[in-house]
Amino acid sequence: MIGEIKMELILNMLKLDEEEREAFSRIVSPEEQRFFPEGIASPEKEDYEQATIILGNPPAAALKDCKRLRLLHARSAGVDQYSAPGVLPDDVTLLSASGAYGHSVSEHMFALLLGCMKRLPAYRDQQGAGSWTDLGPVKTLKGSRVLCVGTGDLGSSFAKLCKAMGAVTVGVRRDAGKAAEGIDEMHSFDQLDELLPEADIVALMLPGGAETNKLMNRERILKMKEDAILVNGGRGSIVDNDALAEIMASGHLWGACLDVTYPEPLPPEHPLWRQPRAVITPHVAGTYHLEETPHLIAEIVLRHVREFLQNNK
Amino acid sequence: MIGEIKMELILNMLKLDEEEREAFSRIVSPEEQRFFPEGIASPEKEDYEQATIILGNPPAAALKDCKRLRLLHARSAGVDQYSAPGVLPDDVTLLSASGAYGHSVSEHMFALLLGCMKRLPAYRDQQGAGSWTDLGPVKTLKGSRVLCVGTGDLGSSFAKLCKAMGAVTVGVRRDAGKAAEGIDEMHSFDQLDELLPEADIVALMLPGGAETNKLMNRERILKMKEDAILVNGGRGSIVDNDALAEIMASGHLWGACLDVTYPEPLPPEHPLWRQPRAVITPHVAGTYHLEETPHLIAEIVLRHVREFLQNNK
Repeated sequence: MIGEIKMELILNMLKLDEEEREAFSRIVSPEEQRFFPEGIASPEKEDYEQATIILGNPPAAALKDCKRLRLLHARSAGVDQYSAPGVLPDDVTLLSASGAYGHSVSEHMFALLLGCMKRLPAYRDQQGAGSWTDLGPVKTLKGSRVLCVGTGDLGSSFAKLCKAMGAVTVGVRRDAGKAAEGIDEMHSFDQLDELLPEADIVALMLPGGAETNKLMNRERILKMKEDAILVNGGRGSIVDNDALAEIMASGHLWGACLDVTYPEPLPPEHPLWRQPRAVITPHVAGTYHLEETPHLIAEIVLRHVREFLQNNK
Repeated sequence: MIGEIKMELILNMLKLDEEEREAFSRIVSPEEQRFFPEGIASPEKEDYEQATIILGNPPAAALKDCKRLRLLHARSAGVDQYSAPGVLPDDVTLLSASGAYGHSVSEHMFALLLGCMKRLPAYRDQQGAGSWTDLGPVKTLKGSRVLCVGTGDLGSSFAKLCKAMGAVTVGVRRDAGKAAEGIDEMHSFDQLDELLPEADIVALMLPGGAETNKLMNRERILKMKEDAILVNGGRGSIVDNDALAEIMASGHLWGACLDVTYPEPLPPEHPLWRQPRAVITPHVAGTYHLEETPHLIAEIVLRHVREFLQNNK
């Protein structure tokens, strides 16, 4: 039964508008695609068993039922839950929706950073009491040195915003010979330790995974200037959050802006919640909080799936 | 006694570093200038009686003692307390330090605005409880229509920041034929009522005084889009703050970002303090909260005083 072997089955779990759904419908025959719009329907065990392509973010545990899978295209930028050892067979292609979140995440992290520089969290804390109290000197991005650790879609977008307000941007990436938009000076990862003490702002915009796990450990956080600001818009696992809480409690750092923590949710008793100079948002910089995001994801995934089908006939 | 009549007496109340003080010392003979560095010393009644030039912000009431005053150069951008009727004789030249605050005030107001768009005040409110709760959709500056009411130093600086993040900027000024950096479309003041309903953000960057008093009255605030944001970085008196509190309590407006109120301090019982969608800072956007500000003021005042002395020999 050659026909059966060759037939695709796409599990399409994306959030799509009508036009986008039609565009996806045209890439395979109707019986080769099943739609499970996120938050509305979920595939069953049987769907996973037959699936050759999955579009969206299924629970990692459901993937153990996949027997025919060739492509998993996540709707997220981070795919560490799928790239972890043992989750997917080696021959499955894993793609991320990198590119869909640069604007949304960078703007959110930039808002956190600017607010932190202007002491807005502390002003907010005193607002309920009707307290008209000047909290003193603030910081400006003009002339600040911003170290972007990770210069992909997120890091580059973030750097562009900082540059637009007069900051000098320094990037760290694997291949320092490769430029990135918005980065004034590019360095390689092995220079990180020397760059940390010179930065006014250290912005982590890296994927998770074994390579980046606790990259910002106690030693490296202590290498930062006493009045520097740490920004984490990548993955919570990149920072040793217990060390960060301890170090901030001792007075080190002007502030920390975290949209990601480890674990998530951050347990209610974690001291970072009550560190006044830490600002925490619950991993909301990306997701679908801008109208444009699901449309950007649909566009990226559609392009990649077409290419995949073309190259794997 | 011709010599006595012609002798200048400058009361220099500015915050100056050593180099700046030397530069000021060189503009007149030593007996023609007395230094009263702000926060350290204050002129006496006798000083005011003899003063021909005052540099800084003396209490308005002290000016009644001035008999020889020809120039008052404030260190602030707003001079409404001195331009009010009866405070200064008509023949006294009044100058402001406009130009020294554009960067500082616009960056502060921009931080408030961005935070408001991303719901950061509400995230801050739940942080102390250790609550990892997603608060839903947010706004972006990309494609937003920002109406800058007032396009001087502050308005123009603010508009440039908004433009750098992809906003469309619309300006309102007396002479619509005069362009301003950062403003895409310029209109005249009499078009304000038609422009309000189209704006996603209305940013007030005007001086105080009779002409602008309660410019944003109940009727005009209600003309704003239901999910628009009001920004006031000019003077508190420009907005009817009681009307604003009532209108926001009814659910109108996404948010209000206020660094200035009327009166100041805003009384602790004022309902705006406890309106969760209002963000209030206690008139701190300017002042000396950036290191650069006193130096910019010194530079501007020095240039103006030299010109004044040159033209009024």
